Amino acid sequence: MIQIDPSKQKILVKNLEKEKAFWESYDKLLIATGASPNKPTIPKINTQGVFCLSTLQSGIEVWQFMETHQPKKAVIVGGGYIGVEMAEALLEKGLEVTVIDRSTYIMKTLDQDMSEEICQSMRKAGIQLLLEERLTAIETDENNQLQAVKTEKGHIPADLVILGLGVKPNTIIAEEAGIKLCDTGAILVNEKMETSISNIWAAGDCASSYHILKEKPMFIALGTIANKHGLIAGSNMAGENITFPGVLGTAITRFNELEIARTGLSEMEAKSMGLAYKVATIQSSNYAGYYPGAGKIKVKLLARKDNLQIIGAQIVGEQGAAKRIDTIVAAISAKQTTYSLAMMDLAYAPPFSNVWDPVQIAARQLL
Amino acid sequence: MIQIDPSKQKILVKNLEKEKAFWESYDKLLIATGASPNKPTIPKINTQGVFCLSTLQSGIEVWQFMETHQPKKAVIVGGGYIGVEMAEALLEKGLEVTVIDRSTYIMKTLDQDMSEEICQSMRKAGIQLLLEERLTAIETDENNQLQAVKTEKGHIPADLVILGLGVKPNTIIAEEAGIKLCDTGAILVNEKMETSISNIWAAGDCASSYHILKEKPMFIALGTIANKHGLIAGSNMAGENITFPGVLGTAITRFNELEIARTGLSEMEAKSMGLAYKVATIQSSNYAGYYPGAGKIKVKLLARKDNLQIIGAQIVGEQGAAKRIDTIVAAISAKQTTYSLAMMDLAYAPPFSNVWDPVQIAARQLL
Repeated sequence: MIQIDPSKQKILVKNLEKEKAFWESYDKLLIATGASPNKPTIPKINTQGVFCLSTLQSGIEVWQFMETHQPKKAVIVGGGYIGVEMAEALLEKGLEVTVIDRSTYIMKTLDQDMSEEICQSMRKAGIQLLLEERLTAIETDENNQLQAVKTEKGHIPADLVILGLGVKPNTIIAEEAGIKLCDTGAILVNEKMETSISNIWAAGDCASSYHILKEKPMFIALGTIANKHGLIAGSNMAGENITFPGVLGTAITRFNELEIARTGLSEMEAKSMGLAYKVATIQSSNYAGYYPGAGKIKVKLLARKDNLQIIGAQIVGEQGAAKRIDTIVAAISAKQTTYSLAMMDLAYAPPFSNVWDPVQIAARQLL
Repeated sequence: MIQIDPSKQKILVKNLEKEKAFWESYDKLLIATGASPNKPTIPKINTQGVFCLSTLQSGIEVWQFMETHQPKKAVIVGGGYIGVEMAEALLEKGLEVTVIDRSTYIMKTLDQDMSEEICQSMRKAGIQLLLEERLTAIETDENNQLQAVKTEKGHIPADLVILGLGVKPNTIIAEEAGIKLCDTGAILVNEKMETSISNIWAAGDCASSYHILKEKPMFIALGTIANKHGLIAGSNMAGENITFPGVLGTAITRFNELEIARTGLSEMEAKSMGLAYKVATIQSSNYAGYYPGAGKIKVKLLARKDNLQIIGAQIVGEQGAAKRIDTIVAAISAKQTTYSLAMMDLAYAPPFSNVWDPVQIAARQLL
């Protein structure tokens, strides 16, 4: 185990090949220990065929298991991004797929009304969605072969289990060095990515990110954010003086043809913050309605009630739908109102949009 | 011809069926006379088979002519949006297509380096592009049948000619009423879409639009802008008090698989304004490079040299490329810098983007 001694600016490094440990001095230190998948402590969780996903290697291991064991029935535990993406992938590989989630709906970073579109699409594709089911055990046969997933409600046969239960930041080294963590368990950093101890920085999935709208540090383990962390921390360690403005919790994924994106506050989050807000949800088409191949798009937009400043959006729809979230990300980042958004000179041509882009239709609805 | 008498708040209306004219009084008047395609005054311009495009009816007429005359060789005069879109459509219909343009490059709202991508794509698709060629006459045979297009350099055989030479605002009624026009020939309006004469509004392709970066009224005949004009004028005439922030000259189109978009100032425009700017042009991929079907994207980004405020962008690339211009539209509208853009929490997942979205790669390049 690596150990940090901040008082001496030294770090205890272990050479894993030679099993030899030595103290190395540092001028500036970066903690980039990442995050690890959450794995519940339940019976037989380490059975072969039960996988968490984190690194590329995890993917290779699932792949290899599928090659050698030819599983037929997959159970995915957790209906978040990983769960939805794995459901798509395994379905395409010809498996029967069941997704279980302990909540009343999947993709909890969205509101339930938007999640409903995804549920419909998944069920239509043949996925069994079991909600309000909590994993209690993994079940095996007498030869210790994976047989089923046990929940509070029953048994679901499975010969492949994917756990998509989120990740937790790897912070033991930081904690032991006396570095402050935030409520979320991630390493607390300031806008320069400095930790609470001088000359020690943290970046990536182990570190917190300031949420621009919640105005507090959050733990959001995403590649985009980790990359920005790295840029900021690295530049500052190298003598620059740049700051990270923070995050909005933007995320994007897809299930088959259905694109899904969100940013800022969901209605549920706005409520839990006690924020007075206005909300509009509109249905439109991704391209001009008469254009061949035009599909559906649904946009939910939230704004502060007092000044109509945009605070969040969710988009579900067909081709070209989801990346429209970036327009709203830019608008929120720059503290724009729904009126400003509605009046922006966004791009229109029939193969790309309606005359009023769907995000503007939502903005006008809010006015 | 309609006539306006502003002093009496009356308008002379002609009943076209009964050929009878009468004066009608108005409290508030909207001029929404649109624009008409530019048609050069050259020999035989009115020959059958030579078309301008403006309304849906123009499209129907071209279609009908193609049905009855089965043309084989189309010449498109003008390499702007209409020219490029018609080139794609006629090529798909199996015609030999030649595009002529009097400039050194087509799609002049982009800079030449970006236009080059489009030229390559068009030539690869089999279109003959003739640059620095000016239309001087239409040529017919002894039966007055369309034969060729004459330019300063030679004759190009043609049995279908499309003129894509832009449009001019229809302003005779306004002019005769004493309403001020701007340099561009469009009706001058203020931010409420009021003309220079009280109680008279103008909206749509006949009216000017304030350009946010050029800080002067421009003539840009596009559906998005006309729609916003209508909303603003209509609301204000009905007693509201809303203003139009202006336009950025955003435009989007495509040629086959190549998507094309622009907003704000081109490098050429920045130069002609004498503005000190910085520019970056990057090549990247529309999706994660390893994702199946990932294609190219080229982003050109301009910022003011003094404060790095973003002032323009051009994007050329494959699926999902062009609508990214909206992120930059939002950033310019809100006076964001390249650093703000680079740090925005834009959406990333492999089927949609790189970890750093191409617009952010361009922004970082500029820093």
